[in-house]
Amino acid sequence: MPDSPTDLRSAFRSGRVTPTAGLAPGFAQTNLIAVPQDWAYDVLLFTQRNPKPCPVLDVGDAGSRTTMLAPGADITTDLPLYRVWKDGELADETADVSSLWRDDLVAFHIGCSFTFEHPVAAAGVPLRHVEQGSNVPMYVTDRECRPAGRVSGPMVVSMRPVPEHQVSLAAAISARMPAVHGGPVHIGDPTELGIADLGAPDFGDPVNLEPGDVPMFWACGVTPQAAVMASRLPFAITHAPGYMLITDTPDSEYVLEVPDAR
Amino acid sequence: MPDSPTDLRSAFRSGRVTPTAGLAPGFAQTNLIAVPQDWAYDVLLFTQRNPKPCPVLDVGDAGSRTTMLAPGADITTDLPLYRVWKDGELADETADVSSLWRDDLVAFHIGCSFTFEHPVAAAGVPLRHVEQGSNVPMYVTDRECRPAGRVSGPMVVSMRPVPEHQVSLAAAISARMPAVHGGPVHIGDPTELGIADLGAPDFGDPVNLEPGDVPMFWACGVTPQAAVMASRLPFAITHAPGYMLITDTPDSEYVLEVPDAR
Repeated sequence: MPDSPTDLRSAFRSGRVTPTAGLAPGFAQTNLIAVPQDWAYDVLLFTQRNPKPCPVLDVGDAGSRTTMLAPGADITTDLPLYRVWKDGELADETADVSSLWRDDLVAFHIGCSFTFEHPVAAAGVPLRHVEQGSNVPMYVTDRECRPAGRVSGPMVVSMRPVPEHQVSLAAAISARMPAVHGGPVHIGDPTELGIADLGAPDFGDPVNLEPGDVPMFWACGVTPQAAVMASRLPFAITHAPGYMLITDTPDSEYVLEVPDAR
Repeated sequence: MPDSPTDLRSAFRSGRVTPTAGLAPGFAQTNLIAVPQDWAYDVLLFTQRNPKPCPVLDVGDAGSRTTMLAPGADITTDLPLYRVWKDGELADETADVSSLWRDDLVAFHIGCSFTFEHPVAAAGVPLRHVEQGSNVPMYVTDRECRPAGRVSGPMVVSMRPVPEHQVSLAAAISARMPAVHGGPVHIGDPTELGIADLGAPDFGDPVNLEPGDVPMFWACGVTPQAAVMASRLPFAITHAPGYMLITDTPDSEYVLEVPDAR
C-alpha cells in the first residue's frame, strides 16, 4: 500500500477499495456529501447548526469536481468507495461516480476523526480498529441534530476503545482539533447514546475491546448521511463510511494553537 | 446604565443609543447582518470560507425576528443602532428597523470581539477604548477574504492598544475563543495590513495609545458590511459598527476547553 496522499488517491482511482483508517498518517481525511444546489443552503445551514458532527473544511462551487484540500484530486474518482442516494435510500455503492456527477452538485467536505488518530497514536494510545485491520465502528445515536430547513436527522458517532489510563489523553488531544470533531461527545456507557449493542454498528465493522478498555465516542461525519436518509433528499452522493478522501492538508493544520494564558 | 442583557436591550428598544463595548460584562455580543433569502447561501458560504472574521453563532429562519442567543429579544428593535443598505450603499442609520423588516430576510449573528474583552480585562489587561469612553476603532485592511459566489470583500479588523508586557496574555486569552474571532491576526505595524493611519479608523472612534502600548489587531465582524458594499447587495440590514446585540449567552460558552495533553 502506498503512503502518500497522491499515490493513495491514484490507487483508489485505479479501482483499489479499502477503508482509509491508518493510511497516509499526518494528512487530514474528509467526509464527502454532495447534494443538488437546491438543497445546498439547507445542508450548509445544517452543518453550521451542528458543528460537532459536521465541521465543514471546504465547500465546492456547483458542479466542481475539485477541492482546495487536495489540489489535483478528482473527487468523483479519488475516494475508494462512494454511496449514491435516491429519495433518501441507498441506491448504489460504487468506486467511481464520475458518470453520475451533475453540474448542479455542491460538494461538502467535512472533517473526519481519522485525522486525530495519527496524533493520538503518536502519543502512545492504541487504535484497536487499526490493530484489528478493520473499519472503525459507527452508530446512529438517539441525539437529534438541530434541524435546518428541510434537513434533519440523528447524530452519528464513531467509537474507539481506549485503555482507561489513556482516556483523558485521547480526549485532550482530540479536543485541540475541533475542525475534525474535537473532543469526545461521550465516554463509557453506550446506552447513554441509545446504542444497544456495541457489537452491531450501523456503519463500519465491530471492534473488540481489550481488557480495561473504555469505549470513547466521537461525533462523526457520517451524520449528514443519516440526514440524507431521514430527510429523504432526492439525490446525493457521499463517501462510503470509513472510505474517505485523503487530502494533502497536514493534520497539524487543524490543531488549534492555544498558548498558555499565564 | 443597566447592566443585565435584558435591561440593556429594553433600554435600546426604548431609543437609547450607545456603543456596547464594556456593557453587560460576561455576556456575548454579536454582529448582525440580514440579507434577502436569495443571497443567504452566498453569505453563509462566505462566512464558512472566512471563519476568522465571520464566525457564525446563529442563523435565523427567513423572516424571523428572534435568535436562540437571546430568547425574548426582537432583533429589529433591541440593538442600539442599525444600518440599512441599498445596492451596497449606506441608505440609513436608525435605532429601529422593525418597519423595514421583510419576510425574506435571513439574519446572521456573528461573533464579536467585545466578547473576549471581559476575560481579557479580568486578567488585568487595560481596554483603552473603554477607559476613554469611546467605540473601538475598526479598519478595512488590504487582505481580501475568500469569495463565495457573488459575495467578496476585504477583511475588517478591530484594534486595541495593549501594554507590551501583556500582548502575549491578550493573545492567549483570545486564542481560546475562536467563535468570537480567536487570537489576533496581526500585532504591531499597521502598514502590514494596509492601514495608513491608526488615527483615522474606517468605523468606530480613534483611540489613544499610552506609552509602551502595542497595537493588536483582531478580525472583525464588520467584515460582512464591507462585503455588502464591495458586492453591492441589493438590500441588507446590519448593526452599526460597535452597536451590537447583547445576548443572554455567557461568554464562557465560547471558551474552548482544551485539557492539558500530558
